[in-house]
Amino acid sequence: MAFCSTFVKPNHSALSPSHIHKAPTPNHGCRTQFCVRASATGAGDGERTIMKKQKDGWEINFSSEKPLTPLLDTVNYPVHMKNLSTQDLEQLAAELRVDIVHSVSNTGGHLSSSLGVVELAVALHHVFNTPEDKIIWDVGHQAYPHKILTGRRSRMHTIRKTSGLAGFPKRDESIHDAFGAGHSSTSISAGLGMAVARDLLGNKNSVISVIGDGAMTAGQAYEAMNNAGFLDTNLIVVLNDNKQVSLPTATLDGPATPVGAISSTLSKLQASTQFRKLREAAKSITKQIGGQTHQVAAKVDEYARGMISASGSTFFEELGLYYIGPVDGHNVEDLVTIFEKVKATPAPGPVLIHIVTEKGKGYPPAEGADDKMHGVVKFDPKTGRQFKPKPSTLSYTQYFAESLIKEAEIDNKIVAIHAAMGGGTGLNYFQKRFPDRCFDVGIAEQHAVTFAAGLATEGLKPFCAIYSSFLQRGYDQVVHDVDLQKLPVRFALDRAGLVGADGPTHCGAFDITFMACLPNMVVMAPSDEAELMHMVATAAAIDDRPSCFRFPRGNGIGATLPLNNKGTPLEIGKGRILIEGSNVALLGYGSVVQNCHHAAKMLSAIGIDVTVADARFCKPLDTDLIKLLAKEHEILITVEEGSIGGFGSHVSQYLSLAGILDGPLKWRAMMLPDRYIDHGSPQDQTEEAGLSSKQIAATVLSLMERPKEAILFK
Amino acid sequence: MAFCSTFVKPNHSALSPSHIHKAPTPNHGCRTQFCVRASATGAGDGERTIMKKQKDGWEINFSSEKPLTPLLDTVNYPVHMKNLSTQDLEQLAAELRVDIVHSVSNTGGHLSSSLGVVELAVALHHVFNTPEDKIIWDVGHQAYPHKILTGRRSRMHTIRKTSGLAGFPKRDESIHDAFGAGHSSTSISAGLGMAVARDLLGNKNSVISVIGDGAMTAGQAYEAMNNAGFLDTNLIVVLNDNKQVSLPTATLDGPATPVGAISSTLSKLQASTQFRKLREAAKSITKQIGGQTHQVAAKVDEYARGMISASGSTFFEELGLYYIGPVDGHNVEDLVTIFEKVKATPAPGPVLIHIVTEKGKGYPPAEGADDKMHGVVKFDPKTGRQFKPKPSTLSYTQYFAESLIKEAEIDNKIVAIHAAMGGGTGLNYFQKRFPDRCFDVGIAEQHAVTFAAGLATEGLKPFCAIYSSFLQRGYDQVVHDVDLQKLPVRFALDRAGLVGADGPTHCGAFDITFMACLPNMVVMAPSDEAELMHMVATAAAIDDRPSCFRFPRGNGIGATLPLNNKGTPLEIGKGRILIEGSNVALLGYGSVVQNCHHAAKMLSAIGIDVTVADARFCKPLDTDLIKLLAKEHEILITVEEGSIGGFGSHVSQYLSLAGILDGPLKWRAMMLPDRYIDHGSPQDQTEEAGLSSKQIAATVLSLMERPKEAILFK
Repeated sequence: MAFCSTFVKPNHSALSPSHIHKAPTPNHGCRTQFCVRASATGAGDGERTIMKKQKDGWEINFSSEKPLTPLLDTVNYPVHMKNLSTQDLEQLAAELRVDIVHSVSNTGGHLSSSLGVVELAVALHHVFNTPEDKIIWDVGHQAYPHKILTGRRSRMHTIRKTSGLAGFPKRDESIHDAFGAGHSSTSISAGLGMAVARDLLGNKNSVISVIGDGAMTAGQAYEAMNNAGFLDTNLIVVLNDNKQVSLPTATLDGPATPVGAISSTLSKLQASTQFRKLREAAKSITKQIGGQTHQVAAKVDEYARGMISASGSTFFEELGLYYIGPVDGHNVEDLVTIFEKVKATPAPGPVLIHIVTEKGKGYPPAEGADDKMHGVVKFDPKTGRQFKPKPSTLSYTQYFAESLIKEAEIDNKIVAIHAAMGGGTGLNYFQKRFPDRCFDVGIAEQHAVTFAAGLATEGLKPFCAIYSSFLQRGYDQVVHDVDLQKLPVRFALDRAGLVGADGPTHCGAFDITFMACLPNMVVMAPSDEAELMHMVATAAAIDDRPSCFRFPRGNGIGATLPLNNKGTPLEIGKGRILIEGSNVALLGYGSVVQNCHHAAKMLSAIGIDVTVADARFCKPLDTDLIKLLAKEHEILITVEEGSIGGFGSHVSQYLSLAGILDGPLKWRAMMLPDRYIDHGSPQDQTEEAGLSSKQIAATVLSLMERPKEAILFK
Repeated sequence: MAFCSTFVKPNHSALSPSHIHKAPTPNHGCRTQFCVRASATGAGDGERTIMKKQKDGWEINFSSEKPLTPLLDTVNYPVHMKNLSTQDLEQLAAELRVDIVHSVSNTGGHLSSSLGVVELAVALHHVFNTPEDKIIWDVGHQAYPHKILTGRRSRMHTIRKTSGLAGFPKRDESIHDAFGAGHSSTSISAGLGMAVARDLLGNKNSVISVIGDGAMTAGQAYEAMNNAGFLDTNLIVVLNDNKQVSLPTATLDGPATPVGAISSTLSKLQASTQFRKLREAAKSITKQIGGQTHQVAAKVDEYARGMISASGSTFFEELGLYYIGPVDGHNVEDLVTIFEKVKATPAPGPVLIHIVTEKGKGYPPAEGADDKMHGVVKFDPKTGRQFKPKPSTLSYTQYFAESLIKEAEIDNKIVAIHAAMGGGTGLNYFQKRFPDRCFDVGIAEQHAVTFAAGLATEGLKPFCAIYSSFLQRGYDQVVHDVDLQKLPVRFALDRAGLVGADGPTHCGAFDITFMACLPNMVVMAPSDEAELMHMVATAAAIDDRPSCFRFPRGNGIGATLPLNNKGTPLEIGKGRILIEGSNVALLGYGSVVQNCHHAAKMLSAIGIDVTVADARFCKPLDTDLIKLLAKEHEILITVEEGSIGGFGSHVSQYLSLAGILDGPLKWRAMMLPDRYIDHGSPQDQTEEAGLSSKQIAATVLSLMERPKEAILFK
């Protein structure tokens, strides 16, 4: 940790806006080591004294320039917060809120989730000691206050930029980031692992998993709670309930309604009047008893009473977690009290502290926005108005949604499924047009895929729209429930390939590889938005097996769209030549075909005319096209925005089997053929699968152009 | 449906053993169309009258030859069961039990799960009408009675054999198999899809998902219940609670203890005395009211009262399911009554009927066995003694477990995780030796992987043992929580490649492809059991990144094991040459190296000496070895038991980049490089990733041996 070399004793009466009503803070003397940078701004703060403590909390005036943050300026690391009073902590939270709004207004990023957890982050870092104690922020886009409080305030302007801070917690970035997370619902599993490891290693630290109510809809959270209840390990789960059982990470069209029965359970908890009465009663009893010790104990008991009185808490109790809540997540005092009590309890087992927060809390433009300003571009902090560029084309997502609506208009069997991503996948539009034919299943990709398979068994035509990297979570269901049963589920894989600021966790790198290895799947990728529309039509038409198409984050290239935005089914397994050249062929798969196009122009400028082809299909492969390209060119380059094992591998396998790569070396790859993977065979397995000793030997003889009968019929 | 052409009027007094105490069945007259094959056996049934109805149910004497099954002989399809009385149905269940025991004793297969659901299968097929009504059997290995009752009795002797019946429900096999399932916990998702489709299409059929308590530990079941509660669709979930929150599909070493907090919730339900009292009270009230209609209503109400009185049922209630239970799953009358009532209720929404059954019920050898004879080879029906061959070698699973124990003995940081497969993965042995260092997380592969990642963050050395095909269910966690964070989790992938009678759902076809495309993963496969032991040691030693090794179902080849079964770490990324030959090289990956070996022997016998190499690693690839093989041979064949995109693809990518395949055609594949996938970059994405137009053009120029500066620095 880096401390300033000049130790300036803090002088709060000079630093703080004079009209902040603050009791003397007895612990200030302990913070003499803090560097109070804000003092450098000196006088002239009159117009910046725009944070006021009101009865209900802190009010911040965002309508003028950025308020001063004198207390936050003294906090570089959590150690600097240890001796702050409750009132200091409240002020710190308010300053954090200001800092986040102004920082994100310059960079863009995730705003409202972070604003909702400033009090939580302050209370956690006040009570617990990272990095010894572990705080795991689920999904992680709410980690901005955590980043600011753990030595990264000065780098917040680099967030989501090259070589800058990541938009999510990242272990490489800070020892205070216990676990990286860009995908949801992993925190309890990871936290349980850390807690079990702690016990095995004889350590004593605390482990805190902070998970949202949205993330609670994912099966992994349930698996982890069930296991935590069984192991009875000391683990703190903070359920940050902001009434968002959905993640509008890229809301195209307003917010998503919380889905899933669990959301009503949480609502019941929030609304239980019986519980509230009990809570009030407990409060008055506590006051009568008096004394600080009693107060602390009563506070926790009071919340814990919710376990008995509030309907819904038994859900967590049945899973073996001790339930405390619901707690006002913007009340620093309550949070600190409860965390301190739970921390001090010798062996509480797994404890779930249910807190209720507001996304965008304290920043009126976010509070008032439909999407709470979840993910934003740069904006004016005074008004919240975002500086959205007006591109000439729409996003691929929108072209997808538009053309799917067109298909659904003429085919009432088309239905759509997404996993809490109505905004991100564009299916909100579809939902609006066909409310009965669109299903948001919550953050539950596994269920989404098998649910779609169930729909397909009855003759419906499901389109399952899931980001490429999120489909990894439903992979077994794609294999086992869809592909092996050859059910015609259509997968629309958004955010395929490169995803820019969203970072590695969201990069759609693997889908070509993991989809094209499946026996029955038709695997496509459009080279532009018009092609995307045709592929939506193609997928709608493919009704005897599963299919998928991947398309990138970002906007279309301005291609001429089909009439009425209604695509025409493509011939399955057929690519196309875009530019005819000589000697060199570029064969692109997906939107990277555009790069091939530009490369061809560059080369043409220096006198080299290359052929550019658009593969369209990875599976089935257009072997005629590939043979033609191979025959008429000396160089063939395949290009794809994906990992090894994908399109290039399918091309090489074909080239090799067709003998086109044969030269001084003949290379062949023997593997399990699709027909075998699809049907299997209990007996003579390697024989059936074509990998028996005899078949290997026969392949050798065949390549040597020698008769193989001697081996095969021996 | 195929009916017998000879219609023989059934004569129950002649067919049934005379001393079966049976009330006259008024509906028998309706079943005149049934073909009563058993009548052919004629007289002399004295010694086969070994099924007796007792007070507690049916007693079957297994100690002599197979009892007659006169009633079952009349049932080819569910339509033949519609008019049977309760007593007939009970007899049918008893006969089914006999038939299954004798059938499986001849074929091997899944015994005890099927014995546990004979009454359930009989009641379901009596009340509901497949194929219009949909019954989805979760996991599916308990579907034998269902298969027998739906036209496949005569083919039961072919089960799990080539061209025979599948061991699981399979849509291709029968219209009565609504959904195929070999992996667990998919039935509610699939059923919900079918129910939603029914409503959209205006149909009226029932949908019934039958799911075990073990399968309830998987997140997908929770996701589906949560979604079902939200959609409030009419759907019947039968929770078949046989107190097996674990699936000992291949128990090496006794049964697994139920894990997960949910198992205690179910126990509470089973044991609730308060609930039982209420139930008795309700019974007496019902009797006082009298009348058949009242009785039926009261029966359901009585069970439904469990929702209020029995602690634990609220768990399902919170998820939005109407809870009925617990019901004795061997009581045909209760089952039929409840199913009929629920079926007749116009809009019950999602209903969960909790039934309690015994695995292996009614067959004393199974009831008494530790593993309840879950999966068996051929056995003697009189004694239950299995005809297990005594192979000279052990299974790969056992060599894995043994060598992991050896590693753990010298390194106390080694821990082991499995997902309800202590028997199947061999970790039961590890559990016995190191009870505090082995974690059975339930059927929860997602959680298993991230839990292991959490353990790794704290410096432990987790070995996560999951079948190849089951790891598909934790794939996102492998990518996102382990690989992108470069955490040293070791994956032991059992059942990789061909799996024989377990069929396509269990075939480990894709793991090489989906693991080797990840940036940080070390990917290995042993060619024999000694190599497996060395790879366990290698994985233990790799502590700076994740690693995996795959090994097959079945037994070792008899390789010489390392001293004390303790392996020695291999050099990472180095293969080995087993036989030196000329002209032709066979490069195997994994246990299929043995086939290469045998192929080499065959070829040698006809005068062709081939080189055989064992790749050991798919990633990092032994490029020196490959270059050497390519240089010194005219033919190079790679062999692997896996899908396209795996080892062969990695070899071809290297060969191509090294120019070794260059001939008349130069082929190159441009894709996202590992370093990019691993770190990402928000800006200049295609440039950073090496896929920009300039880089494509530069690649062309480079291959044309022309200066690329003109393009690159333009």
